[in-house]
Amino acid sequence: MIKLSRLSTDSISGILSEALDFANGKVVKAKSDVFVANLFFEDSTRTKVSFEIAEKKLGLHLVQFDEKKSSINKGETLLDTIKTLEAIGINVAVIRHQQTRYYDELKDARLALVNAGDGVGHHPSQAILDLMTIKQEFGDFKGLKVGIVGDVKHSRVANSNADTLRRLGAKVYFSGPVDWFDEAMLVNGTYLSFDNLLKEVDVLMMLRIQHERHQEKMKLTASEYLKKYGLTKEREKKMKPNAIIMHPAPINRGVEIDGDLVECKRSRIFKQMSNGVYARMAILKYVLEKQSFEFEEIK
Amino acid sequence: MIKLSRLSTDSISGILSEALDFANGKVVKAKSDVFVANLFFEDSTRTKVSFEIAEKKLGLHLVQFDEKKSSINKGETLLDTIKTLEAIGINVAVIRHQQTRYYDELKDARLALVNAGDGVGHHPSQAILDLMTIKQEFGDFKGLKVGIVGDVKHSRVANSNADTLRRLGAKVYFSGPVDWFDEAMLVNGTYLSFDNLLKEVDVLMMLRIQHERHQEKMKLTASEYLKKYGLTKEREKKMKPNAIIMHPAPINRGVEIDGDLVECKRSRIFKQMSNGVYARMAILKYVLEKQSFEFEEIK
Amino acid sequence: MIKLSRLSTDSISGILSEALDFANGKVVKAKSDVFVANLFFEDSTRTKVSFEIAEKKLGLHLVQFDEKKSSINKGETLLDTIKTLEAIGINVAVIRHQQTRYYDELKDARLALVNAGDGVGHHPSQAILDLMTIKQEFGDFKGLKVGIVGDVKHSRVANSNADTLRRLGAKVYFSGPVDWFDEAMLVNGTYLSFDNLLKEVDVLMMLRIQHERHQEKMKLTASEYLKKYGLTKEREKKMKPNAIIMHPAPINRGVEIDGDLVECKRSRIFKQMSNGVYARMAILKYVLEKQSFEFEEIK
Repeated sequence: MIKLSRLSTDSISGILSEALDFANGKVVKAKSDVFVANLFFEDSTRTKVSFEIAEKKLGLHLVQFDEKKSSINKGETLLDTIKTLEAIGINVAVIRHQQTRYYDELKDARLALVNAGDGVGHHPSQAILDLMTIKQEFGDFKGLKVGIVGDVKHSRVANSNADTLRRLGAKVYFSGPVDWFDEAMLVNGTYLSFDNLLKEVDVLMMLRIQHERHQEKMKLTASEYLKKYGLTKEREKKMKPNAIIMHPAPINRGVEIDGDLVECKRSRIFKQMSNGVYARMAILKYVLEKQSFEFEEIK
Repeated sequence: MIKLSRLSTDSISGILSEALDFANGKVVKAKSDVFVANLFFEDSTRTKVSFEIAEKKLGLHLVQFDEKKSSINKGETLLDTIKTLEAIGINVAVIRHQQTRYYDELKDARLALVNAGDGVGHHPSQAILDLMTIKQEFGDFKGLKVGIVGDVKHSRVANSNADTLRRLGAKVYFSGPVDWFDEAMLVNGTYLSFDNLLKEVDVLMMLRIQHERHQEKMKLTASEYLKKYGLTKEREKKMKPNAIIMHPAPINRGVEIDGDLVECKRSRIFKQMSNGVYARMAILKYVLEKQSFEFEEIK
Repeated sequence: MIKLSRLSTDSISGILSEALDFANGKVVKAKSDVFVANLFFEDSTRTKVSFEIAEKKLGLHLVQFDEKKSSINKGETLLDTIKTLEAIGINVAVIRHQQTRYYDELKDARLALVNAGDGVGHHPSQAILDLMTIKQEFGDFKGLKVGIVGDVKHSRVANSNADTLRRLGAKVYFSGPVDWFDEAMLVNGTYLSFDNLLKEVDVLMMLRIQHERHQEKMKLTASEYLKKYGLTKEREKKMKPNAIIMHPAPINRGVEIDGDLVECKRSRIFKQMSNGVYARMAILKYVLEKQSFEFEEIK
């Protein structure tokens, strides 16, 4: 599996540039039959649908795979499932899995793999779409100040974004409950109080509370959380004039963000969703071309 | 959402006429990429498959959406799900939902919406296919006598059909258990005993008992129900010579209708199923054209 | 439904020859719209995905059918479901069902049916792909010695294969726990001890233990089973020089076969999976041509 953290900034820029071309209407189709399977062992609407549209726009053949009915229930390992799909003729598998670094056991797979999220690990296609949204807005990453706020520790979005943003020249700040922060993140940025961070940043990335990944119950009620760590209307007023708000969704309205701000002028939340399709098209094209599949532009 | 009850009889006639053309072999394809999602929050074989075939015959791209794995399980509202699909690039959503008038909360959606059934509310695509089946048989609705029999109160089919039939000039009669009848329906027709209704009507629409919508258990056994309110072979003999039998299916054989009558000469039950695809093609084309998508005829 | 056991050896040879052509790159597409539904009432990754790729390679339109949400849950019979799909416009249904000979109740169906496995009955597409794999290796079946080892009684693969192999001129041997053997199989071959069988055969077909079909628990642990009836590395050494190993998968590694042998030089297990797609293409084409659908070769 190609890892975002291992890709050069040049390669990342190339993918971003292709994604932006797709957003601007560039149409590209696979020149031969390419079969793709989406394996989502964890729930997700937007990511799965987004990949599916991306695949269809690229002219790939999507093969349905029902994880809950698969032979994994007959005791098959993930590697055997993947090798089976490979033998049957699947050329690229898009995988979301609750296990962090699930892909470590897939080293022997020869088909193309795209990580659509691994446990508390990474979420590279979200990172690409986020970067793309920022680039559309500001043109460049150099010197840009980006704040990542909320459940940093359990967020694979934070993980994938912080490293890449830093490498591309942005300054990264974190905020949110200290219990949900991980010192290891400090290599990529600085921890600030929310109100200090707020005044600094050009891009405010609010994270979703990963209820499903918390072992203990959250100690705060939704409205207490919103008041303390969430983006309230008052806080929004303190942001820099051109600063934008981002959120990977799904949104817990009234918890990490005031419900009314989701559609506000600064919000790029729905824009991010639209960009997701183009980001995934660029990623799929990138990994398939590495495997010698060819695409042609349709004018 | 375009409501059948708000459509002029001219518009309805237009949709019927297009559906009949499709039944006669007219082939039409979308001129550009159109992405459709089918959101069935309630079980259904025939309606979902029927929409899917209709969509593929029109050349639309179907995107799979697994309601049970969607972010609605992470607390997302239906509106947010729809707005997400819209942002991701879905152009038309076909929705079946257990909540009556679920679409009231979707007013802010900009994509095209097709109601595939809402709780005990309406089922417009079933109404169109029923009307189409009647029109194929009798050519016109003026003066035609149509009986709707059974679980009228819990049937969205009864609801959608009675209003539209009355507006198109047909006379509507109801029968079935009084407990399962709703006085509000009297604006559209007359309540008769089954045996009186039977002798009058040109079209007999038997309804399915909506077991899953009854709070209490049905007080009658299946055979008692069949004897009292069902279409037995004896009752069938009392029908007018050219009268036809319809049923929206799935059928509880031996409850609302004697199993042997399902395939009898008067029965248009399987014809209705075939017509469903054409009716849904006409509906999808209608709503998509309202959104400026274009279709071309393939000769 | 066309039954493999009723097909002449000429017809079977025709299907095998077509499948081998597909494996060698022959491309064929349906000349008109053909709609197919895959109805898998039992779990399966590889068979379902394999059929799906086969269908897409033939240019058929696949319609999704969710067995768990279908009207079968509203009490509809399998025949009514099939007749409904037929009425809606499905041209061919591929069915896997836990009930042996489920197809006996589908005699009135007019659409094309393909059996993708029935209870402990048959699994004809697996038989075709197995035969195809043997033919690729040895060119002919006459005089070839084939051993089928393991859970013979509960295996539909054993059932379908033994009869066809015998008719094509091969000599069939069985081995495995006596409790899991069925005397009725003796019409097709001879029962031997595993070690005797091993030295004789050109093709060793290991069967999967059908855990889900055993009423009582298996009395042996996995490693005891492997030692007594499984293909260990020691046993593998006693095989004839050019003998090959086959397994229908999914594999219980370390139970019926030593995990390391799955990828060994003699193993054709992944080859079988690849062949599955071509075998299913040939079967689908065969049954659809019987229903007057036409295909054209794309060069």
